Amino acid sequence: MGAGRKPRVGIIGTGAIGGFYGVMLARAGFDVHFLLRSEYPAVLEHGLQVNSSQHGKLTLKPAQAYANAEQMPPCDWLLVGAKTTSNLDLAPAIIQAAATDAKVLVLQNGLDVEDDLRAVLPDSLHLLGGLCFICVHRAGPGQIEHQALGAVNLGYHSGPASADATLSQAIVEEGAALFREAGLDSQAMGNLQQARWQKLVWNVPYNGLSVLLRASTTPLMADPASRELIQDLMQEVLQGAAACGHVIPAAYAQQLFKSTEHMPDYWPSMYHDFLHQRPLELAAIYAAPLAAARAAGCELPKIQALYQALSFIDRHHA
Amino acid sequence: MGAGRKPRVGIIGTGAIGGFYGVMLARAGFDVHFLLRSEYPAVLEHGLQVNSSQHGKLTLKPAQAYANAEQMPPCDWLLVGAKTTSNLDLAPAIIQAAATDAKVLVLQNGLDVEDDLRAVLPDSLHLLGGLCFICVHRAGPGQIEHQALGAVNLGYHSGPASADATLSQAIVEEGAALFREAGLDSQAMGNLQQARWQKLVWNVPYNGLSVLLRASTTPLMADPASRELIQDLMQEVLQGAAACGHVIPAAYAQQLFKSTEHMPDYWPSMYHDFLHQRPLELAAIYAAPLAAARAAGCELPKIQALYQALSFIDRHHA
Repeated sequence: MGAGRKPRVGIIGTGAIGGFYGVMLARAGFDVHFLLRSEYPAVLEHGLQVNSSQHGKLTLKPAQAYANAEQMPPCDWLLVGAKTTSNLDLAPAIIQAAATDAKVLVLQNGLDVEDDLRAVLPDSLHLLGGLCFICVHRAGPGQIEHQALGAVNLGYHSGPASADATLSQAIVEEGAALFREAGLDSQAMGNLQQARWQKLVWNVPYNGLSVLLRASTTPLMADPASRELIQDLMQEVLQGAAACGHVIPAAYAQQLFKSTEHMPDYWPSMYHDFLHQRPLELAAIYAAPLAAARAAGCELPKIQALYQALSFIDRHHA
Repeated sequence: MGAGRKPRVGIIGTGAIGGFYGVMLARAGFDVHFLLRSEYPAVLEHGLQVNSSQHGKLTLKPAQAYANAEQMPPCDWLLVGAKTTSNLDLAPAIIQAAATDAKVLVLQNGLDVEDDLRAVLPDSLHLLGGLCFICVHRAGPGQIEHQALGAVNLGYHSGPASADATLSQAIVEEGAALFREAGLDSQAMGNLQQARWQKLVWNVPYNGLSVLLRASTTPLMADPASRELIQDLMQEVLQGAAACGHVIPAAYAQQLFKSTEHMPDYWPSMYHDFLHQRPLELAAIYAAPLAAARAAGCELPKIQALYQALSFIDRHHA
């Protein structure tokens, strides 16, 4: 963190993820600024509320809320918690709110989610990826329901420190320290792609099956057929990762499977997108890993079947 | 058909399939007797109606309807059109209504659907399997909606002619002639297992996807993702069939795919079962082919994923 002032944090896209982490950081004393769109009037009036099973009812009022990035002060860290499907739309706001050598942290699941953004960001900005292990959803304008967990694993994607492993690692550690100061688990990951594949071990089965079977984690973990399908899908993620050079131990998947059994009942974010007729994040969570595995000579038939079925649903549920 | 009287036909389980073929045979002058359960009073009062796009409105009134097999005369041919899930329950009625050397024809999709029945039928009865290429569904008690097609392909399963290829072939030809006299296409198949695998090329993709994606054939054939998934599933059926010694040319699958494009919009029977919260025919259409292929060393991952998802739905839709 260095000796100076605490870094200033900007939240770009204050949904469930951005709102939760922003409130937790503000509570820890960071200077946090929230960019909003449709929810701006509600948050200006009522602030932000996090109803957390672990941390109780947290209210940030007033929240430093903005409808326009031009009014935000230059931020040292920018947390992007919006849907992967809107990254390009957010680029102008990110550039506007960024301090000269700011760190842009994309808190999103899936593979290659930083690529679109990197292509349009100035070279002076650091781009990082973050994987959130959290059960959280938006309950209303400025209202966030936090059910469980909260850890964030970070890795360096690209930017001025790309060629300097020591510097990039220091930046990632600085980001992890930010979350730890807010009372959250956070690990600096040496390899962002490896971290993204690891996260897919959970997202590929649970996100897709919640939509396909209209089922939350408890019934999915209670039925022998869906349990078997979840394990088969996890196994294919491990095969895809290995083909791409990222060896994930089988015990990691077993551990995720078991810990999901002990989680409170949870509807993955893709189900909320389905329910509210928003586009599903299929490119990041399915198409990109399938393409990466295929380029490495590895077919993942069950994931592909799930992706094909979800693609149909994505075009017909609206 | 021989020189004697026309054979007497019994319909065991007068749903859409049994009702349609029974009415068509009665219309052609056969002596047809219908066993019913819950629909008995309605059929006794109003007879049977087939509303057919090809044959017009057909009414059979009175229909020779029975609530109890003990009251049926001995039948030369027994057509079983019920769900595969109820074959064992129907065995006593079949035995009751059968003439001494009767032919029992199971008009059902899937693999191994005759096995349960064979185990409880007397050795003197011939058992045959029939595949119906037809779009038909039950519209109400004794009311059948016939949308398109109607061909039946038959093969000998087991019985007194098992060791006599000439005799078994003659019996199959006799069955095919029955349907042809009623104005329907019908082929005698030398190999019933081959015929069942061929039929699965259609049933595996369309039955399951209609339930999984809540979609009829027209939208399934209009979306690029479902088209690809259908073709992949057909391809796996061909692989499974080949592993079991039944080579089906790729052109056969392409032809089925194309002809489905030109069919009127159709909800497969499994969707009707789903809609009315009846058990899905997963054992015959998915579990048995998967097990047969696996026993031959062949994995069918997309079919398996579809089966796993449908198994979950089957246990949760009621």
